[in-house]
Amino acid sequence: MGNTFGQVFRITSFGESHGGAVGVVIDGCPPGHRIDLDRVQGWLDRRRPGQSHLASPRAELDRVECLSGLVNGITLGTPLTLIVRNQDMKQDHYSDLQDVYRPSHADFTTDVKYGLKAPSGGGRASARETIGRVAAAAVAEQVLAQLIPGFSVLGFVDRVKDVQADVSKASTYTRTDVEAHPLRCPDEKQRPAMEKLIVEAQKAGDSVGGTIFCGIHHCPAGLGEPVFDKLEADLAKAMLSLPASKGFEVGMGFASTYLYGSEHNDAFVKEGEKIRTATNRSGGIQGGISNGEYIYLRVGFKPVATIFKDQQTVDRQGRELTMKPKAGRHDPCVLPRAVPMVEAMAVLCVMDHFLRQLAIDAARGPHKI
Amino acid sequence: MGNTFGQVFRITSFGESHGGAVGVVIDGCPPGHRIDLDRVQGWLDRRRPGQSHLASPRAELDRVECLSGLVNGITLGTPLTLIVRNQDMKQDHYSDLQDVYRPSHADFTTDVKYGLKAPSGGGRASARETIGRVAAAAVAEQVLAQLIPGFSVLGFVDRVKDVQADVSKASTYTRTDVEAHPLRCPDEKQRPAMEKLIVEAQKAGDSVGGTIFCGIHHCPAGLGEPVFDKLEADLAKAMLSLPASKGFEVGMGFASTYLYGSEHNDAFVKEGEKIRTATNRSGGIQGGISNGEYIYLRVGFKPVATIFKDQQTVDRQGRELTMKPKAGRHDPCVLPRAVPMVEAMAVLCVMDHFLRQLAIDAARGPHKI
Amino acid sequence: MGNTFGQVFRITSFGESHGGAVGVVIDGCPPGHRIDLDRVQGWLDRRRPGQSHLASPRAELDRVECLSGLVNGITLGTPLTLIVRNQDMKQDHYSDLQDVYRPSHADFTTDVKYGLKAPSGGGRASARETIGRVAAAAVAEQVLAQLIPGFSVLGFVDRVKDVQADVSKASTYTRTDVEAHPLRCPDEKQRPAMEKLIVEAQKAGDSVGGTIFCGIHHCPAGLGEPVFDKLEADLAKAMLSLPASKGFEVGMGFASTYLYGSEHNDAFVKEGEKIRTATNRSGGIQGGISNGEYIYLRVGFKPVATIFKDQQTVDRQGRELTMKPKAGRHDPCVLPRAVPMVEAMAVLCVMDHFLRQLAIDAARGPHKI
Amino acid sequence: MGNTFGQVFRITSFGESHGGAVGVVIDGCPPGHRIDLDRVQGWLDRRRPGQSHLASPRAELDRVECLSGLVNGITLGTPLTLIVRNQDMKQDHYSDLQDVYRPSHADFTTDVKYGLKAPSGGGRASARETIGRVAAAAVAEQVLAQLIPGFSVLGFVDRVKDVQADVSKASTYTRTDVEAHPLRCPDEKQRPAMEKLIVEAQKAGDSVGGTIFCGIHHCPAGLGEPVFDKLEADLAKAMLSLPASKGFEVGMGFASTYLYGSEHNDAFVKEGEKIRTATNRSGGIQGGISNGEYIYLRVGFKPVATIFKDQQTVDRQGRELTMKPKAGRHDPCVLPRAVPMVEAMAVLCVMDHFLRQLAIDAARGPHKI
Repeated sequence: MGNTFGQVFRITSFGESHGGAVGVVIDGCPPGHRIDLDRVQGWLDRRRPGQSHLASPRAELDRVECLSGLVNGITLGTPLTLIVRNQDMKQDHYSDLQDVYRPSHADFTTDVKYGLKAPSGGGRASARETIGRVAAAAVAEQVLAQLIPGFSVLGFVDRVKDVQADVSKASTYTRTDVEAHPLRCPDEKQRPAMEKLIVEAQKAGDSVGGTIFCGIHHCPAGLGEPVFDKLEADLAKAMLSLPASKGFEVGMGFASTYLYGSEHNDAFVKEGEKIRTATNRSGGIQGGISNGEYIYLRVGFKPVATIFKDQQTVDRQGRELTMKPKAGRHDPCVLPRAVPMVEAMAVLCVMDHFLRQLAIDAARGPHKI
Repeated sequence: MGNTFGQVFRITSFGESHGGAVGVVIDGCPPGHRIDLDRVQGWLDRRRPGQSHLASPRAELDRVECLSGLVNGITLGTPLTLIVRNQDMKQDHYSDLQDVYRPSHADFTTDVKYGLKAPSGGGRASARETIGRVAAAAVAEQVLAQLIPGFSVLGFVDRVKDVQADVSKASTYTRTDVEAHPLRCPDEKQRPAMEKLIVEAQKAGDSVGGTIFCGIHHCPAGLGEPVFDKLEADLAKAMLSLPASKGFEVGMGFASTYLYGSEHNDAFVKEGEKIRTATNRSGGIQGGISNGEYIYLRVGFKPVATIFKDQQTVDRQGRELTMKPKAGRHDPCVLPRAVPMVEAMAVLCVMDHFLRQLAIDAARGPHKI
Repeated sequence: MGNTFGQVFRITSFGESHGGAVGVVIDGCPPGHRIDLDRVQGWLDRRRPGQSHLASPRAELDRVECLSGLVNGITLGTPLTLIVRNQDMKQDHYSDLQDVYRPSHADFTTDVKYGLKAPSGGGRASARETIGRVAAAAVAEQVLAQLIPGFSVLGFVDRVKDVQADVSKASTYTRTDVEAHPLRCPDEKQRPAMEKLIVEAQKAGDSVGGTIFCGIHHCPAGLGEPVFDKLEADLAKAMLSLPASKGFEVGMGFASTYLYGSEHNDAFVKEGEKIRTATNRSGGIQGGISNGEYIYLRVGFKPVATIFKDQQTVDRQGRELTMKPKAGRHDPCVLPRAVPMVEAMAVLCVMDHFLRQLAIDAARGPHKI
Repeated sequence: MGNTFGQVFRITSFGESHGGAVGVVIDGCPPGHRIDLDRVQGWLDRRRPGQSHLASPRAELDRVECLSGLVNGITLGTPLTLIVRNQDMKQDHYSDLQDVYRPSHADFTTDVKYGLKAPSGGGRASARETIGRVAAAAVAEQVLAQLIPGFSVLGFVDRVKDVQADVSKASTYTRTDVEAHPLRCPDEKQRPAMEKLIVEAQKAGDSVGGTIFCGIHHCPAGLGEPVFDKLEADLAKAMLSLPASKGFEVGMGFASTYLYGSEHNDAFVKEGEKIRTATNRSGGIQGGISNGEYIYLRVGFKPVATIFKDQQTVDRQGRELTMKPKAGRHDPCVLPRAVPMVEAMAVLCVMDHFLRQLAIDAARGPHKI
């Protein structure tokens, strides 16, 4: 269970990292939209490991294939299924770890939950599972581009360990700025220090974490439901469902908790006929509902659990042992690849809430209070 | 929409702050459990405003009434409905604000979304909406106490503005420690400074925010689903669905992002026959699934938006104006009352995932891999 | 579980027949619609027992009360909660049956399922549970009347035991025709024979069943989803969820299975600019989707299980015995009261699918295939 | 939307009849069960067209492929994905019908709903869509066989047009009896007349309908929820979601509506220590919950809409015309192939409710009422 996300734009993710394929079924994709599969492939390429010296060398091609839901590139309104075959299955790589609970991985908890050892590579806990989400978001983004003029989502690496990028210009960065370097941090000044941290961690067989910043431009006002399905609540769930994420904040987030109310409140002002906020400390969401301003959020990712140092652990037979991992596939820092994942979850949240709101708008009665 | 939380233990919240009643329907409560309504009332009393000089003087009695689902105090397995009548309806209190969009409240977004002005008191965005959640959690907690030996949840005020409590002993605090003072912070040393901040903010017509720490003791291993419904993802959603919350972290959270993997990983060790972790930086959840260790998390609450200072804003007719609020109901700091709300959402998450896992456990096949 | 119906217009029913109240929470009711609670009461009055000599003498007032979701009679878009207090609680009436499994009632299955004896009156299996559904439908009908010009639903008693009404004019009958007589059969010629059957069954302490015919006028084309949520599939579930229903058919239903395809197919024709069918054997639904024609269906209700004759059975302690019921509350025929229940479920299905389709319509892309 | 069925054992169907593949994702399949894909293939072979002279000559191989969820034939508890590639894509076959609304097909309603013409073969309305359901049921059946001793489901052709099989021995028929003849009617006496009807309809370019009878052996007592998700309600939805089905009845169904209550009630008796019913007119379900007896139901299928006779219709451009179909793929009678479809939906209903009940059983409290 728990492999479906969304209420109206509903995606179901499937596939283990070392099975036949990973993929997604999108139920609720509106009909009549043109979907460019090359654009979907572009998203997947950004998510893919092995893009640079900073990431895992797993040499997958990750070619997306559409099984249903499109005819001549146009959505039918029926379930749109996208898969990526698994090709680079070096199971032996992990074979000596089959029965070892790797520290801070999902091996132990998966065994407790399902009564079986996930095959090497981690089953559903692998970052490879995110292919389905990213592919679905790449579809959603194309539909939203048609339905909401100016809509876009942009994430970037905000901090690597203790090296913080300048986010004061976050809302002005472009995809080109971000993609200019495989690290996916648009701050050229901080980038070298970040890169150094990652390269040195890799040399040391260690890993580093950090944060991703993500902004949503031109999200219409009115999205999000007032109680459990607040827009920030669904964004929080979306982000914490990503592998290795440990924290989430929206708008000023935890920093807002250090302010007085009088310092944090966003005054309303007129801009022509439009009602806007003079500041945007709320991050574009008030009372769980978007207010039409720029939405921004931050997601914290722990240093990934796979490291190449000796670690104490226990195996499936309950024997204590010291794991001495040989070098293998290894992302010393998940952050650059996490950028499209964070963007994907943001797009999926907006898409779902946008469709939910369309029904409310269309069914609204004539009375005012 | 969006008024239902949970998959198997499914609660539906209803009621505006100034309508006839607020309440909750619980669908999926297991049969045959004794529920003490006085205990439910106890939870509601902790959530209620007006408990001390630190909180809003709204003098509600908030007596819980059970409409269905219990016979002689025993759950029937049918929908359990709890309501609290609204009694203290001083609508005039807000009457001069009827058409003003209060800064950083939900007035504007609610108007955009539903095409109507939320009645005074804020409709569903009011903290009063949380009565239903807390009542439902008070039921869930009694069922869980029966099903999971030792299970308990304890929250407390962790930080007010920049005054931080000592959390190094968080897992040893008791409810008595927390309830010893209306501020609900068990750290006696920091409490006076916290109290001073709140009292001064109130005098200044201002507000302060901070963080709540919440721990879950004796959560069984195996709860949470590997992909979208990770235990921490559902906890994140639960917490961000609370009014005024802006951030969430689990385990070491954002602090973990400053560590190397070798500093963060939790080694597995044997404790008798039991497999445990030597450290608990993960916060009791790995790969989205509980590992049997102490679960802990932190929620950030912004300073509440209601302040008694002049603020620039716009009214419903699009006129810019300066709001000059008269003194009214006003919590200068939501944190003490947010403690039972955070606990409630934690209990509801565990209850739902516990029931979900029961079916998996019971249906497990004989084969191992 | 299983107390919620609908995806977008989602109702949650609660309440036992002899608890504090029965009622419903409607989540997803569009904002800005005027709801006349007298009209809701009118629906409930039609559903209520004791309306005539043909029905149970249970003298409930069944006054509807609104707890949330309305301000000045206008929907807020928030959960709309309606309850009816239980007042006429003659528990003693059944007290000698507390431990007896009444044949063809839910007593035995409820005990197996929940491990407890449903209190007298039958708990959730009682027809009184349908109050929530009927109240919700009375709200939905008022919203649909605003959104779909000409929309209406009309049910009537189609057959009592083997006395069949003339349905050749079904689509022309009016509510006045149906309500002209407490039997709710608009066919004046067959009504006396039906009435005789019911009166004689009552005298004999026995019961009779039959069928309800229900028509939906001016349902827009395009409602219903092609696979599992076909419009007729959701109607079938809706109807079979009513107490005592045992069969469902749509359009010509089982009668269609005796025809050749060439006799059953509905030719398409033009009527002005509109595409219509020359005949309507499909009953207004093709491929699970409404085609804009008159929708009609039939629901079969068994003779109710409560009879006043000696019956062999077993009690909770496993002892065989002969039940010798004293006269009590007793509807010898559920059909007249089932008319508003069937109408209610039809309205709820259309309302939900209408809102679902609004989102698809609004999000449709520009491309055709 | 509407491509997902079930709450806990949740299947999502995808694929058009002429796209890349059709298939299903099963979310919620319990871990540790051995699944024999050959057995899944066996179910699909029974569903496949072209099995005999009685059915469509479409020569598909329909080989099932597993993309995820199994390792070495054992379920992982993760989403289990099964697909069947589409191979026999004679689109030209229908090319001259591209713009014609075939009478009583889904062409017109699909166009209204989605604003686009489904490609030839009917998109999701095609019987080929049922591959996913049947494959999922073939998995569920193997899990249920492990969890419920003696569990089995058996359907057969009950009536072709007006030729009725003897169902008095329905509960004693075996799969061998049913599969002995491609017509899938175990009544040897009536089979020739049924066959004659079908063969003659085919020769005449016409089609015939009829009914399927389906029985469920050894369904545990206690399955089904008391209100909306009654076992018969979910069965009704399941069956009416099959292409061409127009009616459903459970137990004595419509026949029960001709009886007196005293003739229909099922007396309880003891059989050793077990409580059973002396008769089984209810069909194994009382108050929406299974009582442990044999469950039986009947589904009515209209004569299929595809016939080879001239028919009046309208095309997409709104022109009236006479369709003069050339001979093509054509099942003159869907009934033999509908047998495994009906069985599949029955299995899926039981599987889902069985898992739902496991959680209730496991979480039951100690108190009795």
